[in-house]
Amino acid sequence: MTRTLGELAIFLGGELQGPADLPIEGIAAIEQAMPREITFITQKRFARLVDRSQAGAFIVSPEYARLPRPLIVVPHPYLAYARLAALFAPAVRRWPGISHLACVEPGVELGQEVSIAPLVFVGAGARLGDRVAIMPGCVIGQGVSIGADTLIYPNVTIRERCTVGRGCIIHSGAVIGADGFGFVPGDAGHLKIPQLGTVVIEDDVEIGANCAIDRGALGATRVGRGVKMDNLVHLAHNVEVGEHALLVAQVGIAGSAKLGKGVALGGQVGVAGHIELGDGVQVGAQSGVNHSIPAGQTVSGSPARPHREWLQIMGHFPKLPDLYQRLKRLEQTVSELSARLKQEQESSK
Amino acid sequence: MTRTLGELAIFLGGELQGPADLPIEGIAAIEQAMPREITFITQKRFARLVDRSQAGAFIVSPEYARLPRPLIVVPHPYLAYARLAALFAPAVRRWPGISHLACVEPGVELGQEVSIAPLVFVGAGARLGDRVAIMPGCVIGQGVSIGADTLIYPNVTIRERCTVGRGCIIHSGAVIGADGFGFVPGDAGHLKIPQLGTVVIEDDVEIGANCAIDRGALGATRVGRGVKMDNLVHLAHNVEVGEHALLVAQVGIAGSAKLGKGVALGGQVGVAGHIELGDGVQVGAQSGVNHSIPAGQTVSGSPARPHREWLQIMGHFPKLPDLYQRLKRLEQTVSELSARLKQEQESSK
Amino acid sequence: MTRTLGELAIFLGGELQGPADLPIEGIAAIEQAMPREITFITQKRFARLVDRSQAGAFIVSPEYARLPRPLIVVPHPYLAYARLAALFAPAVRRWPGISHLACVEPGVELGQEVSIAPLVFVGAGARLGDRVAIMPGCVIGQGVSIGADTLIYPNVTIRERCTVGRGCIIHSGAVIGADGFGFVPGDAGHLKIPQLGTVVIEDDVEIGANCAIDRGALGATRVGRGVKMDNLVHLAHNVEVGEHALLVAQVGIAGSAKLGKGVALGGQVGVAGHIELGDGVQVGAQSGVNHSIPAGQTVSGSPARPHREWLQIMGHFPKLPDLYQRLKRLEQTVSELSARLKQEQESSK
Repeated sequence: MTRTLGELAIFLGGELQGPADLPIEGIAAIEQAMPREITFITQKRFARLVDRSQAGAFIVSPEYARLPRPLIVVPHPYLAYARLAALFAPAVRRWPGISHLACVEPGVELGQEVSIAPLVFVGAGARLGDRVAIMPGCVIGQGVSIGADTLIYPNVTIRERCTVGRGCIIHSGAVIGADGFGFVPGDAGHLKIPQLGTVVIEDDVEIGANCAIDRGALGATRVGRGVKMDNLVHLAHNVEVGEHALLVAQVGIAGSAKLGKGVALGGQVGVAGHIELGDGVQVGAQSGVNHSIPAGQTVSGSPARPHREWLQIMGHFPKLPDLYQRLKRLEQTVSELSARLKQEQESSK
Repeated sequence: MTRTLGELAIFLGGELQGPADLPIEGIAAIEQAMPREITFITQKRFARLVDRSQAGAFIVSPEYARLPRPLIVVPHPYLAYARLAALFAPAVRRWPGISHLACVEPGVELGQEVSIAPLVFVGAGARLGDRVAIMPGCVIGQGVSIGADTLIYPNVTIRERCTVGRGCIIHSGAVIGADGFGFVPGDAGHLKIPQLGTVVIEDDVEIGANCAIDRGALGATRVGRGVKMDNLVHLAHNVEVGEHALLVAQVGIAGSAKLGKGVALGGQVGVAGHIELGDGVQVGAQSGVNHSIPAGQTVSGSPARPHREWLQIMGHFPKLPDLYQRLKRLEQTVSELSARLKQEQESSK
Repeated sequence: MTRTLGELAIFLGGELQGPADLPIEGIAAIEQAMPREITFITQKRFARLVDRSQAGAFIVSPEYARLPRPLIVVPHPYLAYARLAALFAPAVRRWPGISHLACVEPGVELGQEVSIAPLVFVGAGARLGDRVAIMPGCVIGQGVSIGADTLIYPNVTIRERCTVGRGCIIHSGAVIGADGFGFVPGDAGHLKIPQLGTVVIEDDVEIGANCAIDRGALGATRVGRGVKMDNLVHLAHNVEVGEHALLVAQVGIAGSAKLGKGVALGGQVGVAGHIELGDGVQVGAQSGVNHSIPAGQTVSGSPARPHREWLQIMGHFPKLPDLYQRLKRLEQTVSELSARLKQEQESSK
């Protein structure tokens, strides 16, 4: 696909500086961009690379409006990049219609233009909304409901009766609705508690590769509208994730924990069961949150505490050997002082 | 399915308090339960919710036998809940017989009432016991043996020659028998050590979604009877997990580590290779165990140490900045004292 | 397969001590080896088990050349073990040719002796080199390129346009080329940045079960020649892993991080985005690396610091409660000393 720089400036609502007819065939990072590609400057360190860049044009903020290269000046270059990436993205390949190599059980309800690729299983009673696309190797359980425009990449499993909203993207290997981890200890071992609940994924959610989201023990595990989950994230039964939360890779959340709106968890964070993270809580990578956190707080460490406090503690942490040595020296000094004072007192009697 | 409260009391062996003919159609959590559902009180905080609950009846311990609501009184409400959940659980949907859309190689041995869903591959020489159910998308390798009544959810992979016991449940995306991670360092890179062993899963084991259990380098990786593993757990080659151990989500166990009976590991715990955790060892979430632990101990932290010790240390951890300030002040004070004492001694000469 | 001990000695280029015609049918660990199996001594603790071992023969270093058992003496017994394991390993079962139960789209380019098992999907434009084997349940996207002799185990997903080199092994459940985790914050939620890049896996790479390797946002996520990845590893978009790096299980690497050649990361390590780990950097298990590390360093802890420094700090860590008590006592002592000195000075006026 080729566009002119002028067309792109109009598309982005930006100010054109340079030849309107410059042909642009794609978008690339500043170091890799070729003369028929556009790039963008979102950080100072990128600006230093402009001279060496072969890019045909640059998307910049007003700050860089004087660069002697073809430019599109916009208030938010990163946003403009995202929009152009969408423009140049190759269309996702959808299987046209329902493959005769798929296994769709009777009693499935299909919207308009649904795409079901070969080697897919769809169980009885499932409902797939308009333009839903299911890629090869997926298994959609009985009674699952999937909203319009949702895209399910290969080899995803969605177990029976779970629901996925509209406009969601579920990446390969994700498992939605496996049994929660619930047992009653007994003399003859752990007695399984059947997991009767479901998973409810709201609209515009993205779920990363090889994530595992368990169904509720009773009631539902819920993932709110607009939540974005990276790869290999674990959500235990009855977890609730508030709207627009961000869960970075390898996060694990134990049973019945509740995350508020806009919560952001760094990579490899663990959250204990039955606690609550208020709206907007942010948690540093690898932290372990073992108690509820009020809205708006940023916490770090394991166990997690307020981020600034944690920074201060960790700043002193490397001084431990020094601290210990100094304490020992001080004990020695004090002991000598004490002896000298005793001597002094005795001699002055 | 509808039962009367009286029938449920008999089923649970509990004491009925209320109308025996009250119709009950399901079980739900105290806050969600509707008038035709029963709920249960297993914690004090639930008891406070009774007034507001719309539940038709309550399973309670003798402590709450005076609640003015329809009750079934039992010694262990949580156990009663598990048993009722099993009663009300919808039957797991099994494919009736062997789907003609499955690919079952010649020379597979099938017990009675085996269920093989569409889009399943079963390799030559595999043996599936009575009532084994394999759901869509699974790949069962050559010579794999699966015991009676075992349930394999969609998209599971069991590699060649591994064995799974009776009554096991393997959740979607789990991989059993991938090669262990073994290499000999060499001039031309890492030389792969072929992994000749297998995986042996004993009876009544449950394996969570997207777990990865590697085959032994030589001999077997073993998961003992009654072990329950949560999602995304990693077991390296030749790990041995003792009977009835519990491994919470995202645990990782390095090669040849041995876990005793009833070991319980919290979420995201790491266990080093070639060490031994005695029977009943418990490990707190996110801990890293780098040395063997005697039976019965509870440990926490990374590196792990006895839990009480760790609690005590962590209790002092936030005081580090204060400790450091106090030490500095004390050094100053002692230095002044020392000077004053010196002065004193000189003046008293 | 049966070989004589003499044949094995020739194969290994080792010195035979014992009957050349001794039949050997396999290799096993010292405690499990049977009379027709050979074992090996790579550690002192194995040597102590020789007397009790039923093994027919032993591979040993010159140090153990006097053991009164049939021996093959070699300089590197561990290497010899790896080579014998390869000799005795059962051939990997490849589907003969292209299964008619696979779904191979038109326009796929196939080398010599390619194996495509049943229930595999291969998208248009894919190129599979000579002797590539794709096992059941895999999904190979449009335009994917896979080099000669690469082995793809069941239920792997490789998304469109990614490339995999020659001689690679990809274990079950791995997902290559899922979208990177990139969003622009906005008023209406997180705006997805389409991930236009790919994944480039070079030759001789091994990727563990249920790993997730995201495609680049722009440009490629790169895994260098000879890299070995254990299970459940996460590589974010545009990560670059240098040749012959070793990533142990459950490692997570954030976006655009660069790992040099021969980097070795312990289990559950996390690496922050946009940082660089120099050639040969080693990182202890569970560490969190949040800043660039120069070549050759070994680091540990979270946040990571030089390993020796970390050992020293962690050595003092358990002394925290004692340190605190001693500081308190010392403050008390100094306060008393101060009082006594004041008294002394006043009395001596």
